[in-house]
Amino acid sequence: MVILFRHVFVVGLGMSNVGRFYERSLRDLAGEALFKAIDDAGNAVPSFILVSNMLSSQVEQENLASLIADYCGLRGISGFKVEAACGSGGAALIAGYSLVSSGLADVVAVVGVEKLSERSTPEVARGLAYAADADFEIPYGISFSGLNALVMRYYMNKYDVRREEMSAWPILMHENGYHNPHAHLKMRITHDDVVKSPIIADPIRLLDSCPMSDGAAALILASDEVAREYSDTPVLIAGIGNALDSTDISSRFELDSFLASRLSSERAFKMAGLSPKDVDVAELHDAYSINGVITLEDVGFAPKGKGAKLVVEGKFRPGDKPSINTSGGLKSRGHPVGATGVYQVCEVSMQLRGDFPGIKVSGEVGLTQNIGGVGSNITTIILRR
Amino acid sequence: MVILFRHVFVVGLGMSNVGRFYERSLRDLAGEALFKAIDDAGNAVPSFILVSNMLSSQVEQENLASLIADYCGLRGISGFKVEAACGSGGAALIAGYSLVSSGLADVVAVVGVEKLSERSTPEVARGLAYAADADFEIPYGISFSGLNALVMRYYMNKYDVRREEMSAWPILMHENGYHNPHAHLKMRITHDDVVKSPIIADPIRLLDSCPMSDGAAALILASDEVAREYSDTPVLIAGIGNALDSTDISSRFELDSFLASRLSSERAFKMAGLSPKDVDVAELHDAYSINGVITLEDVGFAPKGKGAKLVVEGKFRPGDKPSINTSGGLKSRGHPVGATGVYQVCEVSMQLRGDFPGIKVSGEVGLTQNIGGVGSNITTIILRR
Repeated sequence: MVILFRHVFVVGLGMSNVGRFYERSLRDLAGEALFKAIDDAGNAVPSFILVSNMLSSQVEQENLASLIADYCGLRGISGFKVEAACGSGGAALIAGYSLVSSGLADVVAVVGVEKLSERSTPEVARGLAYAADADFEIPYGISFSGLNALVMRYYMNKYDVRREEMSAWPILMHENGYHNPHAHLKMRITHDDVVKSPIIADPIRLLDSCPMSDGAAALILASDEVAREYSDTPVLIAGIGNALDSTDISSRFELDSFLASRLSSERAFKMAGLSPKDVDVAELHDAYSINGVITLEDVGFAPKGKGAKLVVEGKFRPGDKPSINTSGGLKSRGHPVGATGVYQVCEVSMQLRGDFPGIKVSGEVGLTQNIGGVGSNITTIILRR
Repeated sequence: MVILFRHVFVVGLGMSNVGRFYERSLRDLAGEALFKAIDDAGNAVPSFILVSNMLSSQVEQENLASLIADYCGLRGISGFKVEAACGSGGAALIAGYSLVSSGLADVVAVVGVEKLSERSTPEVARGLAYAADADFEIPYGISFSGLNALVMRYYMNKYDVRREEMSAWPILMHENGYHNPHAHLKMRITHDDVVKSPIIADPIRLLDSCPMSDGAAALILASDEVAREYSDTPVLIAGIGNALDSTDISSRFELDSFLASRLSSERAFKMAGLSPKDVDVAELHDAYSINGVITLEDVGFAPKGKGAKLVVEGKFRPGDKPSINTSGGLKSRGHPVGATGVYQVCEVSMQLRGDFPGIKVSGEVGLTQNIGGVGSNITTIILRR
């Protein structure tokens, strides 16, 4: 049997601002993003809606595909929610890709949304820990920040990385995000600000940490047969790969590198027939400074142990190859948990289309990597103009 | 471009018993089902794992694809969790189908699991209400049972259906489930038992309601190229369809029929090139007696308003065409929420293969329908021997 799979394109996108919107509901944010994406795709009508979200249980709402489809006047279409902790957005894009590629759908909406500002910080911190191991890890009292702090301490010791070098990451993120109109934290910071900010979980400080954000982002995906009907600037999903690792970090073979990051990158690059040196612009998942640095290495943009040092030397700034996190990343754009992976693809697609509203960079090949848990569910996506 | 999509087969299946297993964990149940399914599929190794689950947030665990893959020695494969309230299992099967059909995977595991016995009944009842509308419905004090009671009252009034007629459904379910070794409630009941059982939400009585169950079921799906490597009795997924309706029932145009049930059935039958009269054996989603009865009508097995009356007359018993819920349905087999849709496909596949462990019926065409919310996310699947 001859198999000819369909290519899948991003033909529309839309984002809400990222921030803390006490007065807005989950469906209101999701609706803003989806209506913008449908508008951007020339009023394409999706036949499937996939909603990526992690913690809507904290606002006592599940069944989000029905909720958001109905809110947007799409009653009767098909859909479901996808969850992979902070990596939910990337995972939902795999589901959306396969629905279009298989022919079950020609046009699919992927909507990432998270709305948690009505919950207290301890409640949200507890919810985020659902990404780790509820039986063998969290009951012993460690938080999600604490787990990442173990990774940061181990990495800094093993590769002799100084505090000043780690600070280069959040400083660059805030410089980029300062220019991004939809970013949550539009402020510049210095190394002095970082080391004077409170300790969250030693050695992670407040300014090593992304903010907890509300927000929604949406993408309209379409098959090669119809993509041009909806967009003059379709962006090809050239490669997509996901990989899982253990939820707990106690059983890992290494702490200074994420197996799932390497595997998902390899899968995405192989599918696209490309390599890290081909990438012009990327959005990486820097929930903490250490995640940004390790990801540079695992994706193949920096040698092992050199990620932070290269940032200090001025690599990865806008206009470099690759430019990293022109959005400001999770650190400055913010981290609307289940929506983050969808924001990343919106932002890189806009850079490739030439209409990103912040610092513009030129390029033909983009990459996103979205991480769930402490490197336990990771999706890498390669985009081409 | 010529498109030739790949057919998708069930090549392995496995189930845990359904019940209340205070001493077992979510991963333990899921592992039992997945190991059985892998064994049944001749040790097939899936490259994706999709986990269907609704309320693992109540046991403070998300990120279930990573959790279960790692527990089963499958670290490094791909996957994510799918949620569509009580319809999560059916929705995950759509995701699994498209991954195989698109060629992103040759072999996919779909694992449904729910583990809630450690939570109190009020906590679980509150969680189930996340399937309804958290902003505009639940805050006014109605429960998920209360919403279904409105549907039952409306239906009984409109079609002049008597209490005795409604009781025929749970009586048949318990008769079937009595013979099913993995059923939760293996006991026969009478009309007298039903009307003497406590009122849950008038007119719904305890014996109109499914039990809240723990359990896990798993399926191994494979493409036509490789299906015969793993099974001598592969079961074809001939049709699959999903449809969404509003989460709240206050904005529906009708209460005595579910739009999403009709649409998802039509989509599945159209894809399979079959009609309701072709179906030999079916598993329908009877969270309450009223859901079983309405579904008979919406799928096309009974004329409108006649579902309960046909059950009274002896239709739908084992050996009839179609035989309905030879497992005992949600009422007797039980309702391990996010796993139910996967159980249904396991059970119908076993009837078609000839190795169902309860009451056996013969047949070539099977159907499952899995409902999330009050008819808000529904998946229908047509299976062929």
